[in-house]
Amino acid sequence: MELLKQRILSDGVVSPGNVLKVDSFLNHQIDVELLDAIAEEFYRIYADKPIDKVLTIEASGIAIACFAAQRFGAPLVFAKKAQSINLEGDSYVTRIESYTHGRIFDVIVSKKYLAAGDHILIVDDFLANACALDGLIAIAEEAGAVIEGIGIVIEKGFQRGGASLRERGYPLSSLAIIESMDAETGEVVFG
Amino acid sequence: MELLKQRILSDGVVSPGNVLKVDSFLNHQIDVELLDAIAEEFYRIYADKPIDKVLTIEASGIAIACFAAQRFGAPLVFAKKAQSINLEGDSYVTRIESYTHGRIFDVIVSKKYLAAGDHILIVDDFLANACALDGLIAIAEEAGAVIEGIGIVIEKGFQRGGASLRERGYPLSSLAIIESMDAETGEVVFG
Repeated sequence: MELLKQRILSDGVVSPGNVLKVDSFLNHQIDVELLDAIAEEFYRIYADKPIDKVLTIEASGIAIACFAAQRFGAPLVFAKKAQSINLEGDSYVTRIESYTHGRIFDVIVSKKYLAAGDHILIVDDFLANACALDGLIAIAEEAGAVIEGIGIVIEKGFQRGGASLRERGYPLSSLAIIESMDAETGEVVFG
Repeated sequence: MELLKQRILSDGVVSPGNVLKVDSFLNHQIDVELLDAIAEEFYRIYADKPIDKVLTIEASGIAIACFAAQRFGAPLVFAKKAQSINLEGDSYVTRIESYTHGRIFDVIVSKKYLAAGDHILIVDDFLANACALDGLIAIAEEAGAVIEGIGIVIEKGFQRGGASLRERGYPLSSLAIIESMDAETGEVVFG
């Protein structure tokens, strides 16, 4: 997606440790016009699928899921990252490790909001080692939902998550795939 | 807002400890059509204000802020609830206590995305004791931003947050104000 790649080149910041900061438009401050264009692109890709629910994980996935859900005329469900007293005990729970935060936490979705027969689109902002995504997939499969699509905004193509998901046959689409990036020069190369 | 009140009456669940669960449409599964209608209502209320940024706090505020930001043609900024390695050190930080989670955490906004001269609309899903909202207000005032409006979806009118904010002169609008609720009968009475 050209508009997105141009935005990454103009406003993304490469930091040591393979960190790409896009907090000026994607995951702290959010450009809702860009997100709506991203949702339009996901809709173009998956329009022929009978998607009736959008699944993501808090926090930065929520904004992307909002506009995607609007395009598909479907509700969204966001997985929570820690046990909350506002959640029923009857939940799907899987444990994942966060690359960004360097810690382990539970991913939780109430059984009321994901079930066998749901046709879902999973969306998230980043795909690197696919830890968060693997958690969402595990929950979707436990629920018996059909994963019709996985829409990622930015994939770090040099990490193993995307390749692993494609090998396992998941219908993954990443709108920008980064082949390499350099914290010293600030250069970002797309695949 | 009648549509919202009807939805609370039909799908909200009252639990012991003054907990109103609206996770079927507002803060776990999200009805994006309802949220867009909520955003339209916020726009109706604050359309004459020069709002150029929408501020909220993760996680459930993000979805509300998305559609509000779209209505105002403004970016949104969501405050983070814990220190992340993806955030610059140069941030506004304030400490709040969560009623829902029963714990204390930091609320963080990068100084890059909130500044003197910003005219902001603050939005959130719930207002009870106003702990989260007080944190956002403290950050906005430290930044020198002008608070043009505060838009809340559900206010628990029997807790002190809303009254305190109105006494202090903040331009607060809550779309549904709950006067009382009863976990035994499930009854919800609006103010």
